[in-house]
Amino acid sequence: MTEDQRLARGTRTRQRIARRAVDIASVEGLTGLSLGRLATELELSKSGIQTLFRTKENLQLAAAEAAQAEFTAAVLLPAEEVADGAARLRALIEHWITYAETPLFAGGCFWSATLPDFDSRPGPVREVLLGQHSAWLAHLAGRVSRAVTAGEIRALDPDLTAFQLDAVLTAANTAMRLGDAGAAEKVRRTVTQLLGG
Amino acid sequence: MTEDQRLARGTRTRQRIARRAVDIASVEGLTGLSLGRLATELELSKSGIQTLFRTKENLQLAAAEAAQAEFTAAVLLPAEEVADGAARLRALIEHWITYAETPLFAGGCFWSATLPDFDSRPGPVREVLLGQHSAWLAHLAGRVSRAVTAGEIRALDPDLTAFQLDAVLTAANTAMRLGDAGAAEKVRRTVTQLLGG
Repeated sequence: MTEDQRLARGTRTRQRIARRAVDIASVEGLTGLSLGRLATELELSKSGIQTLFRTKENLQLAAAEAAQAEFTAAVLLPAEEVADGAARLRALIEHWITYAETPLFAGGCFWSATLPDFDSRPGPVREVLLGQHSAWLAHLAGRVSRAVTAGEIRALDPDLTAFQLDAVLTAANTAMRLGDAGAAEKVRRTVTQLLGG
Repeated sequence: MTEDQRLARGTRTRQRIARRAVDIASVEGLTGLSLGRLATELELSKSGIQTLFRTKENLQLAAAEAAQAEFTAAVLLPAEEVADGAARLRALIEHWITYAETPLFAGGCFWSATLPDFDSRPGPVREVLLGQHSAWLAHLAGRVSRAVTAGEIRALDPDLTAFQLDAVLTAANTAMRLGDAGAAEKVRRTVTQLLGG
């Protein structure tokens, strides 16, 4: 094997481990992750995983990065294919519902499962999760703002509306996990109430 | 010490342990609790705690019960002292904000911190948490319904409105933990938007 092949293989293994870490964290939070557990589940050597990540914190950071990449591909980018304005905002919310309902990650929304754990644990993982969550709220507020500017919805406050939409999406994610079959419908009715029919 | 004195002392110790368990769970969730940790933190013998609770699951159930009792005393009952209708609904939300903001438990809302952990762990603890959460939503819906019947707010759907109010309260609790000083204000603006000024 050449040096290039070895590096490519290391990158693929790293991605595979990070992706499994996202699934575990979406169910149990990031604090339950461990290099040993990942090694067992993926049938890899513990020393190999240790070489790739070194610490549990690096594994948590890699999981957050992998979750963000998949979320962007599954929710943010597809919505950009829809016409700018209210239609794009509604598409964004529908893609989010699919993300939580299908679900993309084993335990549903990654941030709903991990942010409550880290709100009182200062450090780089908390900073990354918080930055990702803030970026999502800002993205949502931007889409609300465009729909207001286009005159397609009433003059809502973008930041407040983003807070409210994120709140009902997060609550719906929890309700789905707890077996509430009407959770997506509650989100859609809230969107209709906020944005108009 | 008489038998009665010994029983009363056991009850007090049990309550003290359960109350500390609520504080820990509000920060870290219920899965991080252990009889050994409680013994160390409260400077009690581990065998004494084991006699009182026997299992971690019993400790988790005792914590859920203690959290419910304090929540009822701090949020539900004070709101009942206000005139029935929209005023009582608003008082209920204000008491909830105080409960999360002061906060009553070290890490803020007990259910925001514990429900996401247990949504995929079937068993008695999940059933109790779910029952408590459903009872809260039903209580909130009942208060919305009374305000609608009194003609004091518009004809909102009580169940949907309860879902929305709980969603923004939970999101505000998380935002408070993450240092957002404007979280309570966002809840109040949402309430004004939903119920009228």
